Amino acid sequence: MALHVLRFRRSESESWGLVRDGRIQAIPGSYVTTAEFLARGVARARDLAGRPAEASCSPAEVEILSPVTTPCRVICLGANYRQHMIDVGMDPDAKTFNMFFTKSSASVAPPHTEVRRPAHVRLLDYEIELALVIGRDVTVKTEVTRENLHEYVAGITIANDVSARDIQIPQTQFFKGKSYRTFCPLGPYLCLLDRDDAPYLDRLELTLLVNGEVRQHDTTANLVFKPAETLSELSDFSDLSPGDVLLTGTPAGCALTVPSPLLARVAGLLPEAKKWELFKKAQGRSPRYLKDNDVIRSTIKSPDRHIDLGEQVNRVAAR
Amino acid sequence: MALHVLRFRRSESESWGLVRDGRIQAIPGSYVTTAEFLARGVARARDLAGRPAEASCSPAEVEILSPVTTPCRVICLGANYRQHMIDVGMDPDAKTFNMFFTKSSASVAPPHTEVRRPAHVRLLDYEIELALVIGRDVTVKTEVTRENLHEYVAGITIANDVSARDIQIPQTQFFKGKSYRTFCPLGPYLCLLDRDDAPYLDRLELTLLVNGEVRQHDTTANLVFKPAETLSELSDFSDLSPGDVLLTGTPAGCALTVPSPLLARVAGLLPEAKKWELFKKAQGRSPRYLKDNDVIRSTIKSPDRHIDLGEQVNRVAAR
Repeated sequence: MALHVLRFRRSESESWGLVRDGRIQAIPGSYVTTAEFLARGVARARDLAGRPAEASCSPAEVEILSPVTTPCRVICLGANYRQHMIDVGMDPDAKTFNMFFTKSSASVAPPHTEVRRPAHVRLLDYEIELALVIGRDVTVKTEVTRENLHEYVAGITIANDVSARDIQIPQTQFFKGKSYRTFCPLGPYLCLLDRDDAPYLDRLELTLLVNGEVRQHDTTANLVFKPAETLSELSDFSDLSPGDVLLTGTPAGCALTVPSPLLARVAGLLPEAKKWELFKKAQGRSPRYLKDNDVIRSTIKSPDRHIDLGEQVNRVAAR
Repeated sequence: MALHVLRFRRSESESWGLVRDGRIQAIPGSYVTTAEFLARGVARARDLAGRPAEASCSPAEVEILSPVTTPCRVICLGANYRQHMIDVGMDPDAKTFNMFFTKSSASVAPPHTEVRRPAHVRLLDYEIELALVIGRDVTVKTEVTRENLHEYVAGITIANDVSARDIQIPQTQFFKGKSYRTFCPLGPYLCLLDRDDAPYLDRLELTLLVNGEVRQHDTTANLVFKPAETLSELSDFSDLSPGDVLLTGTPAGCALTVPSPLLARVAGLLPEAKKWELFKKAQGRSPRYLKDNDVIRSTIKSPDRHIDLGEQVNRVAAR
């Protein structure tokens, strides 16, 4: 049974809690890292879930923390939703490999934090993503399948892969453009998956709003590479540890627009500096890029609410 | 005083050793990670160095391990030597930012290991680099200067940033193309730096040979961004921990050749698939890419041998 848990702080002390009917019940035990919680806390959470709720509190009474502690690996995928690929001029049916990159874990932030825009960043973008939290060590090339996926993925949570497009694109620096502190809010809930919950990974609805306007809305049914095949491919060139996180790509609807193939070829004839000056100017005209005080709301859930990862709320602020 | 140490295995047990006059003296104590060695072992190494050598053994009697244990961050810089930048059509004097990317720590390998070429990789390249081993936690934006550099950099070692160009370039996947297991031999020696040794970082000679032929030879005097300014820039978007490693870029001389700006613009007019087919064909004609059984030898030292990081020897093998 899918269990929803969170990490929180109350009266200076940090705990993990079981979420039921919108209330939090503290899980006994002390866990410094997510890996420790996965190793020792999950069994206690399941034990608690089997008994009637008692001594619970409201989420409003606590400070919700990221369910992923740092340092950890934060591994990401580019263009992995069908419509998003089509929008950027790619053919999802012709895709033969994942596009992997990393964010620094310095970017990891709580789910209700401010996203702090560095002063030099003008093209700040959002990317809602389903995040997989890794449950076991991987140190060799490994065949992950739909059947054994639950052994490798301990749970799922909401991620926002916040991106400074004016760093990422003109400098072709994915790592830098996506790694500034607060650029990866995670949470609020970590949903711990059972073997039986695996089919839900293919039917989760992602929705991201900016100031109440829907910007991204899609379902994981449209993921081009599914979690199992992505993890198999990744294991060929990266180790994984419990508590690491894999972001599975973002649906269409980001602020970034990609020029038509024709325009891209014409732009390719320009000197680099001129080309990127025009890129920044054209993108800067879009009203969709995040501005200070914008409020981003992100949810991921199954239509039947069997899985509901809660709501991320992030206000944009100059840092 | 610059101390040279290494990590090694003998009779099934792992130790750290002090290197003097080409011989190894075991440093007392047990250190599971590089961070533990830096925290508790360095003082004992310095203590040992102040006394006459005794009970030493030859490097040939031991298996030399990477001086950097995993998991750890492996952060890298693109195009950071003057001639290398000129070769790829960039102006080193106009460079205003570093090009950061990451390798997975799964790529970390001992200094005398085989570099294993994945079966699908045809354009296997070498990149000798000076690697900085981080000595303390960095969790906020930090001003690192020549004066306080020794507080952040515990020591230096040799790295080879082995790269599958047929993944890295056509797929624009730096992380994947550079992260396959054995793609980052490190060592043999970790040179622990004192405050007084800092000036040596600007006059180290790097030399890489393939089958006895010099392919790369340059000095860190030609680094465009120096270690202190690179660490300052990096601290804005990445945390660092003791035992992490920063590769500072590679000099000219890799197998990869970059087309002239004119040719690049013409190629930009081609469909993507055609462009990369031509790229792989053109690169494949170069005799410089690594072939199975090639032997790579890498050294880094100061002209006066005050610092001598030993020799990496890596044979290429199909995996």
